[in-house]
Amino acid sequence: MIEITLPDGSIKSVAPGTTPMDIAKSISQGLARNVISAKFNDTIVETKTALTTNGSLVLYTWNDPEGKKAFWHSSAHILAQAIEILYPNAKLWVGPAIENGFYYDIDLGDETISDKDFKRIEDKMLEIARGKHEFTMREVSKLEALAYYRDSNKYKLDLIGNLEDGTITFCDHDTFTDLCRGGHIPNTGIVKAVKILSVAGAYWKGDENNKQLTRVYGISFPKQKELTEYLQLLEEAKKRDHRKLGKELELFTFSKKVGQGLPLWLPKGAALRERLENFLKQAQKKAGYEMVITPHIGQKELYETSGHYAKYGEDSFQPILTPKEDEEFLLKPMNCPHHCEVYNSNQWSYKDLPKRFAEFGTVYRYEQSGELHGLTRVRGFTQDDAHIFCMPDQLDKEFKDVIDLVLYVFGSLGFENFTAQVSLRDPEKPEKYIGSNENWEKAEAAILNAAKDKNLNYVVETGEAAFYGPKLDFMVKDALGRQWQLGTIQVDYNLPERFDLTYKGSDNELHRPVMIHRAPFGSMERFVAILLEHTAGNFPLWLVPDQVIVLSISEKYEKYAQKVLNVLENNEIRALIDNRNETMGKKIRKAEMKKIPYMIIVGENEEQENKISVRQHGGEDLGMITIEDFKTLLNSEIEKTLKQF
Amino acid sequence: MIEITLPDGSIKSVAPGTTPMDIAKSISQGLARNVISAKFNDTIVETKTALTTNGSLVLYTWNDPEGKKAFWHSSAHILAQAIEILYPNAKLWVGPAIENGFYYDIDLGDETISDKDFKRIEDKMLEIARGKHEFTMREVSKLEALAYYRDSNKYKLDLIGNLEDGTITFCDHDTFTDLCRGGHIPNTGIVKAVKILSVAGAYWKGDENNKQLTRVYGISFPKQKELTEYLQLLEEAKKRDHRKLGKELELFTFSKKVGQGLPLWLPKGAALRERLENFLKQAQKKAGYEMVITPHIGQKELYETSGHYAKYGEDSFQPILTPKEDEEFLLKPMNCPHHCEVYNSNQWSYKDLPKRFAEFGTVYRYEQSGELHGLTRVRGFTQDDAHIFCMPDQLDKEFKDVIDLVLYVFGSLGFENFTAQVSLRDPEKPEKYIGSNENWEKAEAAILNAAKDKNLNYVVETGEAAFYGPKLDFMVKDALGRQWQLGTIQVDYNLPERFDLTYKGSDNELHRPVMIHRAPFGSMERFVAILLEHTAGNFPLWLVPDQVIVLSISEKYEKYAQKVLNVLENNEIRALIDNRNETMGKKIRKAEMKKIPYMIIVGENEEQENKISVRQHGGEDLGMITIEDFKTLLNSEIEKTLKQF
Repeated sequence: MIEITLPDGSIKSVAPGTTPMDIAKSISQGLARNVISAKFNDTIVETKTALTTNGSLVLYTWNDPEGKKAFWHSSAHILAQAIEILYPNAKLWVGPAIENGFYYDIDLGDETISDKDFKRIEDKMLEIARGKHEFTMREVSKLEALAYYRDSNKYKLDLIGNLEDGTITFCDHDTFTDLCRGGHIPNTGIVKAVKILSVAGAYWKGDENNKQLTRVYGISFPKQKELTEYLQLLEEAKKRDHRKLGKELELFTFSKKVGQGLPLWLPKGAALRERLENFLKQAQKKAGYEMVITPHIGQKELYETSGHYAKYGEDSFQPILTPKEDEEFLLKPMNCPHHCEVYNSNQWSYKDLPKRFAEFGTVYRYEQSGELHGLTRVRGFTQDDAHIFCMPDQLDKEFKDVIDLVLYVFGSLGFENFTAQVSLRDPEKPEKYIGSNENWEKAEAAILNAAKDKNLNYVVETGEAAFYGPKLDFMVKDALGRQWQLGTIQVDYNLPERFDLTYKGSDNELHRPVMIHRAPFGSMERFVAILLEHTAGNFPLWLVPDQVIVLSISEKYEKYAQKVLNVLENNEIRALIDNRNETMGKKIRKAEMKKIPYMIIVGENEEQENKISVRQHGGEDLGMITIEDFKTLLNSEIEKTLKQF
Repeated sequence: MIEITLPDGSIKSVAPGTTPMDIAKSISQGLARNVISAKFNDTIVETKTALTTNGSLVLYTWNDPEGKKAFWHSSAHILAQAIEILYPNAKLWVGPAIENGFYYDIDLGDETISDKDFKRIEDKMLEIARGKHEFTMREVSKLEALAYYRDSNKYKLDLIGNLEDGTITFCDHDTFTDLCRGGHIPNTGIVKAVKILSVAGAYWKGDENNKQLTRVYGISFPKQKELTEYLQLLEEAKKRDHRKLGKELELFTFSKKVGQGLPLWLPKGAALRERLENFLKQAQKKAGYEMVITPHIGQKELYETSGHYAKYGEDSFQPILTPKEDEEFLLKPMNCPHHCEVYNSNQWSYKDLPKRFAEFGTVYRYEQSGELHGLTRVRGFTQDDAHIFCMPDQLDKEFKDVIDLVLYVFGSLGFENFTAQVSLRDPEKPEKYIGSNENWEKAEAAILNAAKDKNLNYVVETGEAAFYGPKLDFMVKDALGRQWQLGTIQVDYNLPERFDLTYKGSDNELHRPVMIHRAPFGSMERFVAILLEHTAGNFPLWLVPDQVIVLSISEKYEKYAQKVLNVLENNEIRALIDNRNETMGKKIRKAEMKKIPYMIIVGENEEQENKISVRQHGGEDLGMITIEDFKTLLNSEIEKTLKQF
């Protein structure tokens, strides 16, 4: 008998040769129906792999990331088979599961696949799936493997050439065989819905000197309904794409001449960003932060001191030389070294601490052009950065205060769904970390304590701390259910050492302060992008570029419209006017497109009664009211989201 | 007879051989007493030079820059003679007049001059001066000149070696002779006061491979009173040195590690700068400007398009390379190319113009380290930049509006004494300028018209326009009478061409807009420096870092002091508290040193009556008043300087 330990700690004694599926069945028929993949002793196995030793077993269903991976990996086999059937000259390369779905890279010879072919590929895949073919792994010798592909597929031969004899496995299902490491669902029948999403070119092995293969992207699901929902989500995500919305709402642009990944904030975007910055500035002021301003470059020596140059120098924007002097500067990739120098401009006493230096600091980091994406992946971005320099005993309070600030930011911007991750050091590898054991214990206790105290929904990841200190990261879920990392709080014992930061204690001796890095937004660029996709451009009223647009029913009421506009503007309401000689329908459509929360419509009745008719974005008609009541309406809506810190 | 034309256009017919001094005498005895130098046909002459041809003559007194130059140049001769007498082995090199005074470079052999020697040099100079020795120019042949110095002075020999025979002149006075081009005062007796200011080392010919000579700096005046005033001014300027004040008031700092010329704004400085920026932002918003935000780097191509790379590339911070891609970026030396690209992100119609894009844009320009000076000469600075893109017919109004804005800025910051300079093109060299004749005429008329209309005290400098357009510069006089260039408005026909900027006219054709560059502050760094020196750190109340400090008479009143502080802070008054266990005298001295405009002193009486005693910076006692009255006092003081735009 062998002993199989399950995730809940329970142990099953079973005969050698028992499979994960057998164990699932022994637990419940429901589990057996849903289990699609398994992990035995940290190795992915098939559900029908015979277990022959003691060990721990995890069973995966579609709801687990590992389950999805097996599902999509198996779907890639089905795709490959369908392609082989439909394109007999196709030569397969590799086909992995990815974050959402799978792809296969294929040399199609003289043939091509266009979107017109997607349907027949999907049909062929579903036909194969319906056959409920089992996936069966088998070991093959290197010679056998090479012989199998010798005349038909130079790509697989190349792959096999790099493998060790004795480690090579093939996977068979139906009439199809593929070189494969394993990790499949029990049979093809579980795949009930497939969709080919796109085709793209992909150089063999990612090398542009090689032949370009065809990459076919697809996704599959165990239920048709899930595919339908996914496609709707995709459609919605496209509509919410911040690059598209950013253009429509005139928030930002890019210029080829200025350079890739370097956003230019247009007036409406710059004003929105300023509102966000002022919002955080006000809260930070109350929380005792002080703003500083530091340059966007620093001498190489600064980054040698901080250690960043040794670590990142070669992969970063290269040093800036001067024409006449022996100096080298770097674009600043972060603000912390500068803030350490601000701290060092004075000899602080314990009475002065904590010092909290904040800056909306624009930093520059080199990213390969292929990895740039709108505002979420850029080469220049502005962090809502701050560094808190405090005594170890102050960490507790500082951490709690920073969490309060982050929660205030999330609350004011409509991110209600978030979790936190506390990253601690690996207690078995103390040599990996800088800082005394005592300080680490203090810091970790402070973070855990703060997370508990603030009722955060958090997980603890042991061994995930940076070498210089533990940290707390916030993950928010957006309206489409996508996760984004937003907001980080990090303890740092490293930079205070490297910059020899000190404070004079009550004992009149010099001590080393602790440093906290924190950024509730993370970066202004990324935050605005996420907020755009989260809200689909329907920003909270306090933040939205234009709060109101005044639409006159006809030329006759232009004057009254202008009067209404003036009243609004004098009340600090961001308002526009549309006096174009257009139909009301067209005016409303444009205002809807621009996502302006309120439309004010004025005509004869309104002018006579000195009132305004109000229509909300999306269509709700609020009737005819006084401007005074409208102001109250706006204010109460703003007060609902934007509370005082 | 020859005809001598005077600056007022009048012509004097005089006998050949008449001297400028003769002509001064013929005009008035007063003028004759004061004239100390002259220019004949654009050549500086002595007052006793015999005039032998027709020509135009300008007579200079001490009040003219040219008069001062002759005075100080002559004083350098006196200094040289004094040195030769006191240090018989001294070898003279050269001794020019400079902006304030003069210097002489001397090889002192084994001897040195220290500040202890200044007095006897000054005494010797005054002794020579009292001799009323005339300065007499004489031509010498190159051979004679070389013979004169052959055994005594290798430096002068080197100088003469580079001169053309027939152009060499010596100047004699008393027993002293120097190689000299001329331009002296009539005699040494006019010099009534001298001061040796400092000694410094100076490499011969400025080449550090050469021997280091001793440079003796001095200044002289026609009246003792003027020297006294000058020395007081120097003392006052030292006290007002913005580098000293910036440190005392904790406004900014520099860090060796970050790099020379790269200021770090400390909390009080950053907050002050933000107030200045917000002040201008508000006015700009009313004036129809839109803020944008652009990155601090741009591709080299951007600056090739703008023409800046060809012109300044080699002398600037060098290009930034990327590790993996064939890209080159430059730190942005100005914001205009970026703003052109912002303009280009849309196809504007004539109805959209003018577009006014503003940005507090930080730019980086390489300056040699020897030329850096506090905040006035830095390598990174933030311009209060804006670019107006308009139709040629809109220039007139735009110019007037910009002048209004500049005058508003000056008025709110206490610069009451300023002049303007209008720089126009040289009408005889149209080929030097870009842009059509018609547009230049429009632009120049617009500037002149605006300057007149706004009652500016301005001068017109023909031929001083940039090649790309005419401009208007503002010069302010600070409290010490020093001139600073602040604020510039420039028309630009060049960048719109280079960036192919267009707008769709009412004729539906594409037209080229005109661009105006303007910056009322110039740069935040330089402006704050000048404001510091102008106000000696006593900023206007609306701008000053800390408006009030609350001083408790003793521990007993700390609570009441804290209560007063809270009330002030709740009223948005920037207040500090000094509850140290120190004497009131010490607390007041510290508050005076920190230049805090108002001190509030609280003790028994104040607490009992729920009032505060107020003392102004500088000592005036305002008595015991209510906090409410104090608020009114502050508000009315602020309203006096800070008006609405």
